[in-house]
Amino acid sequence: MINLASDNVVGASKQVLDALIAANSGAEAAYGSDHYTAEAEAMLADVFEHDVKVFLLATGTGANALALAALSPPWGAIFCHEESHVADDECGAPEMFTDGAKLIGLPGVNGKITADRLETAIGRYPKGVVKAVQPAAVSISQVTESGTLYSLEEIARIGEVARRHELGVHLDGARFANAVTALQCSPAEMTWKAGVDVVSFGATKNGCLACEAVVFFDPARAEHFGFRRKRSGHTVSKGRLLGAQMSAYLRNNHWLDNARHANAMAARLVQGLSGSTGVRLPWPSQANEVFAIMPKATAKILADAGVRAAPWYELSVSLPPHEKIGSDEVFWRFVTSFETKAEQIDEVIALAKV
Amino acid sequence: MINLASDNVVGASKQVLDALIAANSGAEAAYGSDHYTAEAEAMLADVFEHDVKVFLLATGTGANALALAALSPPWGAIFCHEESHVADDECGAPEMFTDGAKLIGLPGVNGKITADRLETAIGRYPKGVVKAVQPAAVSISQVTESGTLYSLEEIARIGEVARRHELGVHLDGARFANAVTALQCSPAEMTWKAGVDVVSFGATKNGCLACEAVVFFDPARAEHFGFRRKRSGHTVSKGRLLGAQMSAYLRNNHWLDNARHANAMAARLVQGLSGSTGVRLPWPSQANEVFAIMPKATAKILADAGVRAAPWYELSVSLPPHEKIGSDEVFWRFVTSFETKAEQIDEVIALAKV
Amino acid sequence: MINLASDNVVGASKQVLDALIAANSGAEAAYGSDHYTAEAEAMLADVFEHDVKVFLLATGTGANALALAALSPPWGAIFCHEESHVADDECGAPEMFTDGAKLIGLPGVNGKITADRLETAIGRYPKGVVKAVQPAAVSISQVTESGTLYSLEEIARIGEVARRHELGVHLDGARFANAVTALQCSPAEMTWKAGVDVVSFGATKNGCLACEAVVFFDPARAEHFGFRRKRSGHTVSKGRLLGAQMSAYLRNNHWLDNARHANAMAARLVQGLSGSTGVRLPWPSQANEVFAIMPKATAKILADAGVRAAPWYELSVSLPPHEKIGSDEVFWRFVTSFETKAEQIDEVIALAKV
Amino acid sequence: MINLASDNVVGASKQVLDALIAANSGAEAAYGSDHYTAEAEAMLADVFEHDVKVFLLATGTGANALALAALSPPWGAIFCHEESHVADDECGAPEMFTDGAKLIGLPGVNGKITADRLETAIGRYPKGVVKAVQPAAVSISQVTESGTLYSLEEIARIGEVARRHELGVHLDGARFANAVTALQCSPAEMTWKAGVDVVSFGATKNGCLACEAVVFFDPARAEHFGFRRKRSGHTVSKGRLLGAQMSAYLRNNHWLDNARHANAMAARLVQGLSGSTGVRLPWPSQANEVFAIMPKATAKILADAGVRAAPWYELSVSLPPHEKIGSDEVFWRFVTSFETKAEQIDEVIALAKV
Repeated sequence: MINLASDNVVGASKQVLDALIAANSGAEAAYGSDHYTAEAEAMLADVFEHDVKVFLLATGTGANALALAALSPPWGAIFCHEESHVADDECGAPEMFTDGAKLIGLPGVNGKITADRLETAIGRYPKGVVKAVQPAAVSISQVTESGTLYSLEEIARIGEVARRHELGVHLDGARFANAVTALQCSPAEMTWKAGVDVVSFGATKNGCLACEAVVFFDPARAEHFGFRRKRSGHTVSKGRLLGAQMSAYLRNNHWLDNARHANAMAARLVQGLSGSTGVRLPWPSQANEVFAIMPKATAKILADAGVRAAPWYELSVSLPPHEKIGSDEVFWRFVTSFETKAEQIDEVIALAKV
Repeated sequence: MINLASDNVVGASKQVLDALIAANSGAEAAYGSDHYTAEAEAMLADVFEHDVKVFLLATGTGANALALAALSPPWGAIFCHEESHVADDECGAPEMFTDGAKLIGLPGVNGKITADRLETAIGRYPKGVVKAVQPAAVSISQVTESGTLYSLEEIARIGEVARRHELGVHLDGARFANAVTALQCSPAEMTWKAGVDVVSFGATKNGCLACEAVVFFDPARAEHFGFRRKRSGHTVSKGRLLGAQMSAYLRNNHWLDNARHANAMAARLVQGLSGSTGVRLPWPSQANEVFAIMPKATAKILADAGVRAAPWYELSVSLPPHEKIGSDEVFWRFVTSFETKAEQIDEVIALAKV
Repeated sequence: MINLASDNVVGASKQVLDALIAANSGAEAAYGSDHYTAEAEAMLADVFEHDVKVFLLATGTGANALALAALSPPWGAIFCHEESHVADDECGAPEMFTDGAKLIGLPGVNGKITADRLETAIGRYPKGVVKAVQPAAVSISQVTESGTLYSLEEIARIGEVARRHELGVHLDGARFANAVTALQCSPAEMTWKAGVDVVSFGATKNGCLACEAVVFFDPARAEHFGFRRKRSGHTVSKGRLLGAQMSAYLRNNHWLDNARHANAMAARLVQGLSGSTGVRLPWPSQANEVFAIMPKATAKILADAGVRAAPWYELSVSLPPHEKIGSDEVFWRFVTSFETKAEQIDEVIALAKV
Repeated sequence: MINLASDNVVGASKQVLDALIAANSGAEAAYGSDHYTAEAEAMLADVFEHDVKVFLLATGTGANALALAALSPPWGAIFCHEESHVADDECGAPEMFTDGAKLIGLPGVNGKITADRLETAIGRYPKGVVKAVQPAAVSISQVTESGTLYSLEEIARIGEVARRHELGVHLDGARFANAVTALQCSPAEMTWKAGVDVVSFGATKNGCLACEAVVFFDPARAEHFGFRRKRSGHTVSKGRLLGAQMSAYLRNNHWLDNARHANAMAARLVQGLSGSTGVRLPWPSQANEVFAIMPKATAKILADAGVRAAPWYELSVSLPPHEKIGSDEVFWRFVTSFETKAEQIDEVIALAKV
């Protein structure tokens, strides 16, 4: 079986697992007061070249929902792509954690929103008018749900609109490493230098078992976060579990190496699929995800051979206008990870080359 | 350093860690659809000798808050001990997850509530009267926050009152294993046979790194739990992390062995401290916790020697009437775990024997 | 001054005010146990030709938010028009009262959603998939935010889709009377006979000072409503205030007479404006609202003469495609009420006839 | 029938009703932008001799819950008397509006908490410790649920403790007028001069039909109140309803006259009952409520003669220690209002004099 349904179908990388084993012995203070967590926090400050407030937790949904709750009051409007993970895949977690803020889903091809559309959308919710929810935050995903990337300029333009209207900017970085390696930029450039206020810094998909960090660049925004994390049940008691994963993940650029590999595997798949009859990619594959429209016959060959991919939403508003999945076609997502082998990709390519 | 501040200052047991390592390789379906989770679920049905609905997650606060949300509407009253963990140590997580239900803290020595007091308290909230929150659930902790145990009869009496008034019964079993081994009863006897509807089955403190199970005996009560877990961010993506821990924890009575050891270490400490001048235990130590009132001088000797314990709340309503901590005394909690060594206990005893 | 900005700029009708005065004397049981409320409830059963559960309260936002909370769990999806009152004008009240359900705004010209679009939208949230909020309800406004009406057939088709997918159907009837008189149908035909489960039955705009009813046709759906109303602070203590208004409003078809008058005034305005240069109505005026795109010059004349209207949202998705408000134009809403005089309308018409 | 069950069983006073009638004609801006509301706001500034931010709404539960939400975050602790209205009679409204804050009920005879007990209770929730809800506010009722009054000194001492620990102070003034006339002090002395930050200023029970004001002395605390009121559905559209009531209520000391009358009627009842065999008052009657323990035989005579009172909670922790209601006794509350006639009181007295 070659499982490319997601980058969370694999375990931890060897480096991370070894660190977990090493951290297992001895007594450590609980609830995040352990040495491993302290080390991870210091390393993230280095990674981002900025003073940061860091909160580790086990899930991306928790990270996103808590981050958004730090940016928006219950009567706030949070702008995001209509098909973003926070809007579509978290069963209303942002609404729960913000105590009822409204996620305003904006359309946009390739899974991206634009600064212009954000500006227009903000205009619909006039400041101080009590019947209207109040623009409070914008959330972008980098890598997007369509496997694409915002350029640094695009982020900066969104950041600029947000700043002008006093919105906080959240970046859902479930695949942060894949984005930063693909853009060949620094974490700082992709975040605070472009106007981002808080990052969901994902590590689970790219080498850990369960570890995410919420990273704030302005400590004032993090003021109440400890209480929010605790009362949502996201403060892990044996904090070493998180601290050991995160510090190992960051050590010696392990995280970037992992992402670079995953991205390369995706690029290999893209190149290989270009030779397959009837296969087309509606979105540019810019990180470690490949979205392919394929003949059902091709899909069947793959499935029969044990290749797993994720059927995707065929009516996605992120699809280019006029792109339509035919009745004899499927729309699949392939995701590569640090564990994906070149031979696996080649096998998929060979199978698809009918 | 001998750290007895909590049973969460240690890592995982060897058996659990080995299982984690073994489970790390290969692809597994995400979000709890992995084989390890399925195995853990089946094992818990065996453990409880009952069909069960099981939901794994990483934290006890999450488990408790989600379990209570399954039992109480936002306008519900949840009865519990005034100093229970759900009331005092979770920063309002039950209130958050239930969307505002009211925890009604009842007093009671030794950390326990009685069926009679529960009955009286229920009477204060007449059924169907809209100004009153509506009695919905009772939550008991076994082991209690005072390190004591409810007898099976006490639980059954509480269960009987609950049944009569149509309240759900939650058992916070953060130290479930310690309780069941101390009582020398079966998990079934301590739960559904005594009227318990849902259990927070803790494994973290007694051998795991981060793993708890919410266990329902009636599937109807679990109907919406999957959504609740997801939207609170407690559905771990790489579910093997939880499944592998829990199945290893339960295999070959490992969990009971661990608890038996921890309990024995606590008993050893109790016995040893009985010879210490000025030391007294306000509560019977019935599992793996020892609460001691000690002269400040003794406490200083321990602290200087690197012994860590947890200073406890000196005005606890669970203290017997007239018990008072003097100004030259401290009130400390010692907790033993599966990792505690007899020599460590003996060293503490020797130090305290001034 | 001729204030046509809204139908809530006037007071109560004489019949309603007289009833309030008459009901003021004597002692009455509080919290809705008074005789006036009982009478209003019985009258609403007659009005709807159905057993009903009725809850009176003072505001439309409260009525809508409570009704939706009765239909949707916190992890539910509530489908509505993208620019409906519940989505746009209540500062997130539905999100607050449902504890975080998601309002899914659907586009649609003339302020209406279609059964087909509802069906497609439901498909995006697969049943039982925990990452997706679960389709729970659909809310339609009758009269719509664009002053238009759903035909009985359109409602029935929406109701049929809802029934098939087990969604509750809510009708926001802030202008219920205007709709039912315009359609010349019975309240039953416009509601339960067409698949509606719960109605926000507005009376404030059409003759009362502050009185709305939430009307359920299935008592099971109303089971917890009393608690919801109380804990949201919408149970008025001197219940006669509401009961007296509602019973007077319904007596002798007063409510229908009022609505018929308001609708006639709007029709008069429409007809009159047809002779005004440069004035066009993007939406058919089907009840008591007239939306007009007008030259700024015309608008200035009206404003200078003391005519008040409400500037409307120029980027409304309810506008027909290609309809665009020019830079020398305004987009205004005029609303007539039971108090509007024919001479006032004629004066507006005369002013606009430049 | 002589209904003394509550002060909300009567309608509006003539002065208030006349004002409502007078305010009914003509067009007024909606949602609180009307002239009557502006007048009421200005009058309240005069009443309190302070700049104030005022928000009118229709119910006391709404006023209390919104005021508390302005003072406490979701992870906050709100200290109040264990049997206060906010804790016991609002079906969890404060929990709903604060998104899950915890009401910490303190015991205390005569329905009052003390500064000392408040101080001790605060100590249980250490600042900055994330597992503990954070002390955020204290709420006192004046008149209390036991019909008693805090002296100005008692309020000031509570205010001083609150200030020292940075808690906001809320005063539930459902019977504000009765308290201020009984204490013969100024509204300023009973509130901001004693450390109160926000008042639920009740008018419904003492002359209006449905009108309460939330009054802030520090505009910063009121910053988001408009949004909170709107999204909870408490912004009345025809704002004149509230503005006209409140301004009439305050005009020419009408509110104080009404309260003085009600208080006098209660005093008359107290004096009269002193001659009744077997009747005793466990609490001093300091405003317009009289709580009496009476022989069942006496109670039957009253009930048979059509006298209505409210059976009270017999296990109230506000009762003096050792006070116990016998099995042949009842515990009843009588409440007088601006409408109560001396002859009615005398009739009750005569009936009770067996």
